[in-house]
Amino acid sequence: MGHNVASGLLRRLTTRRSMLVGGALAASAAGFGTTFAPGLVRSPGQPGRAPVLASGVTRQVTIYAEALPGNLYGYGLAPGQATIPGPVLEIYEGDTLEITLVNTTNQRLSIHPHGVDYSTDSDGTPLNNSFNNPGETKTYVWRSHEMSAAEGRRFMPGSAGYWHYHDHAMGTDHGTAGLIRGLYGALVVRRRGDILPEKQFTVVFNDMTINNKAAPDTPMFEANLGQRVEWHVIGHGSLFHTFHLHAHRWADNRTGMLEGPGDPSRAIDNKDLNPGSSFGFQVLAGDGVGPGVWMYHCHVQSHSDGGMVGLFLVRNADGSMPAGAQEAIDRFHGHAHSAAQTAAGASNQSLSHTHGG
Amino acid sequence: MGHNVASGLLRRLTTRRSMLVGGALAASAAGFGTTFAPGLVRSPGQPGRAPVLASGVTRQVTIYAEALPGNLYGYGLAPGQATIPGPVLEIYEGDTLEITLVNTTNQRLSIHPHGVDYSTDSDGTPLNNSFNNPGETKTYVWRSHEMSAAEGRRFMPGSAGYWHYHDHAMGTDHGTAGLIRGLYGALVVRRRGDILPEKQFTVVFNDMTINNKAAPDTPMFEANLGQRVEWHVIGHGSLFHTFHLHAHRWADNRTGMLEGPGDPSRAIDNKDLNPGSSFGFQVLAGDGVGPGVWMYHCHVQSHSDGGMVGLFLVRNADGSMPAGAQEAIDRFHGHAHSAAQTAAGASNQSLSHTHGG
Amino acid sequence: MGHNVASGLLRRLTTRRSMLVGGALAASAAGFGTTFAPGLVRSPGQPGRAPVLASGVTRQVTIYAEALPGNLYGYGLAPGQATIPGPVLEIYEGDTLEITLVNTTNQRLSIHPHGVDYSTDSDGTPLNNSFNNPGETKTYVWRSHEMSAAEGRRFMPGSAGYWHYHDHAMGTDHGTAGLIRGLYGALVVRRRGDILPEKQFTVVFNDMTINNKAAPDTPMFEANLGQRVEWHVIGHGSLFHTFHLHAHRWADNRTGMLEGPGDPSRAIDNKDLNPGSSFGFQVLAGDGVGPGVWMYHCHVQSHSDGGMVGLFLVRNADGSMPAGAQEAIDRFHGHAHSAAQTAAGASNQSLSHTHGG
Repeated sequence: MGHNVASGLLRRLTTRRSMLVGGALAASAAGFGTTFAPGLVRSPGQPGRAPVLASGVTRQVTIYAEALPGNLYGYGLAPGQATIPGPVLEIYEGDTLEITLVNTTNQRLSIHPHGVDYSTDSDGTPLNNSFNNPGETKTYVWRSHEMSAAEGRRFMPGSAGYWHYHDHAMGTDHGTAGLIRGLYGALVVRRRGDILPEKQFTVVFNDMTINNKAAPDTPMFEANLGQRVEWHVIGHGSLFHTFHLHAHRWADNRTGMLEGPGDPSRAIDNKDLNPGSSFGFQVLAGDGVGPGVWMYHCHVQSHSDGGMVGLFLVRNADGSMPAGAQEAIDRFHGHAHSAAQTAAGASNQSLSHTHGG
Repeated sequence: MGHNVASGLLRRLTTRRSMLVGGALAASAAGFGTTFAPGLVRSPGQPGRAPVLASGVTRQVTIYAEALPGNLYGYGLAPGQATIPGPVLEIYEGDTLEITLVNTTNQRLSIHPHGVDYSTDSDGTPLNNSFNNPGETKTYVWRSHEMSAAEGRRFMPGSAGYWHYHDHAMGTDHGTAGLIRGLYGALVVRRRGDILPEKQFTVVFNDMTINNKAAPDTPMFEANLGQRVEWHVIGHGSLFHTFHLHAHRWADNRTGMLEGPGDPSRAIDNKDLNPGSSFGFQVLAGDGVGPGVWMYHCHVQSHSDGGMVGLFLVRNADGSMPAGAQEAIDRFHGHAHSAAQTAAGASNQSLSHTHGG
Repeated sequence: MGHNVASGLLRRLTTRRSMLVGGALAASAAGFGTTFAPGLVRSPGQPGRAPVLASGVTRQVTIYAEALPGNLYGYGLAPGQATIPGPVLEIYEGDTLEITLVNTTNQRLSIHPHGVDYSTDSDGTPLNNSFNNPGETKTYVWRSHEMSAAEGRRFMPGSAGYWHYHDHAMGTDHGTAGLIRGLYGALVVRRRGDILPEKQFTVVFNDMTINNKAAPDTPMFEANLGQRVEWHVIGHGSLFHTFHLHAHRWADNRTGMLEGPGDPSRAIDNKDLNPGSSFGFQVLAGDGVGPGVWMYHCHVQSHSDGGMVGLFLVRNADGSMPAGAQEAIDRFHGHAHSAAQTAAGASNQSLSHTHGG
């Protein structure tokens, strides 16, 4: 078994590698292009870098932490463009991200990643004196690695995963105020050979909100029938949640797909989503079920009733609206959802001011 | 590897397939027979259907939603036979269930499945105008599929899983009142070649109850030593739980068994069981531990103390009572359990009236 | 596939087996030696036992349950040496542990294991009349087994796992008082061929405490850069938690390592840790990130802010302190952590008296 699998892996790695590091354009085609909103601002290409296994490219990104209306905060890739959640950051195993964080606010804050490699000075914690004072600019370096052999057939895992990043310094030494106010985003580390999606959505269950919004102002994600859509799902705050998506399911493993007919992973459509955890998966929009408006929501009943629900609009393959979809959307907006409540009064206040967002 | 596994899979599929779709009797032997209580009422056989891969049979089932004493509700396969939980519905990947839901109550309600494929008009949600008004009869269609190849060695997962179904319309747009009052049940989708059990138990942690009961009135499940017993375990309500079974363990994957000696899954005997999630597994009753009375319970201490505990009676292989078992049962019934509390006062009230159930 | 994997497994089993049961010294080197604190008191060696597959050794251990200051209780391997958590108990699949529990307290209590095999009289529950009255001594027998073939390619899982043991009789029939006061510990069952660690840490999230302590008195674990460190992570009490470790990650499967390049498991650094659940994993201290002081904490924001946080000190490879480490430790001890709260007032009281522990 070892031989077949290993050679297959090597073949995949080699093939994909040539797509990735052949130059800036190739890298863009491999997943950093305009199909991703918000996309990753990349440094100029890495010309002349040979497609050697287990080495990676280094990308510089500048991120601006900014105050937003309603006592919220966000990360953005350019001044005045902060969003909640922040931009999706995406690399391949072996790559390095050098993040220059510009703190435009009057608060202490930081950026702390899950899953990747960083030394103590990029920990993003007050413990390690790793944060931005108000107005301060600081660079954080996140590295990543491929799997490496251990004893026997075993491997220490590589960095690939649907991770996330967040503040770890505002309000408390754990960034509790920064989190409740919106300083979080998705971080994707891919393994060579991973299937790339056509669209990406980020869903953050953050106390009683989704992306700091409550129904009916939660995000409505859209795709055309059959498009390969990737969901980044992240939990934050102080409550427990379960994420449920109607009419779509995925494998409960690294990619959401089975790695072969013998992959023992469960197919699921509901998964625990508790603070600090994240997962991701890809679905073909409307696969086997057709177009229409599908709910995603927290399955904790008091939470879904309280507004932790949003819509996934699967359009017809040609992008037109399916029959009945607009009526469902109208029903959703007309519903009397319970008042959403968040752990922070400040954030709660903002919820009532951001309708239609 | 690919070759060996694929051919092995094909062989298993073919073998099992001939058992399943050769006619009504064969299908019954494969898991829809009288050994399952409550069993699935099946349509007349599908004579003449050829054992072709990846096609499936269509089964019609009529389900009656009924009011039960104590302000409870249940699903049943015939008038006057509603139970909490409802009947186990069971199909193979590729099969279709056409469910005619008869609403005999004066409440708006629906039936919403996890895991299987349905179009918006079978979503079971008010969002999609998919529910039964009081007294109304409506048909919901649930389809299923086998795994399908994606890029590389990957597969999009099939429908196989230990799923569940529940109301999504009573009380709120998420069916919160229907759930707290008993409108839920297990839905099993098997992959060809799955090992079939001799007995099946359904355990639903629903707020502070098990199957809407509290100790000592929670279900006592029974099997003889060595019998292959399948547990369907489902979470509902607004609380978090962990399911623990004494003296038995299972693999934390799709089937509860290892798919081969290299299957990396954990063996577990305690698993998170939060609202909307479900899992299943098979154990050999008393395997390696012997007969006797074994607890299953929520391992959240305030919940087990509050009555979220039941018994698994493993009889001797010949069906006789093992030494000490009756004494343990008597101790269980004599215990001063804390008063069980449910999120709904109505349901709570019923608990004190259903002792001995 | 079956052939290669099976022969590989057999080879590994044979190799490791000779290390393990060749005599007491070999067994010690394989993981029961002085590198483990607290270690397992073992019976005299098993000389002359042949390295036969699927048989195991029997070990006798005496455990003392004792009252500790602050209304706490602990398990220990000798009188006066009880600790919270109790000693790590460690066996290989196929081995048996005969535990003589000496109850030196004036409380009813027991010892109940997860994962292993026991008959009703070793269940550790009042239900099965299996507990120690005040002052009573009683023997509990825990057996274990290797995986066994089921139908097709499937196997019923063996006992290997990162399990735990705890009281099931003090205060309530579920041992709620014993748990809140410290009667718990780690139980590791290894499969032949598992990689053995150089150091082991046990972390128990028990209501609002870690090992019944709150920051800054939570354990500071230490290792040198590159040492293979095994974490035993256990949840207890009545609250939900997530365990997060900074700058280290592991595979979410049985061992924490990938079982081969096709292992579909996620790499994670944050995992649900709810009552009755446990998991374990090995990391190379500071691998890819360097030495320093790294936080481990509950990622539920109100819990980390409330004191559920501790330190993992990764020293330089030669054991010296890395730059900045002492400053970080000082900051940690100087922080104004919120007052820790536990479910039991008694335990809470003790927290304020055990600073510096």
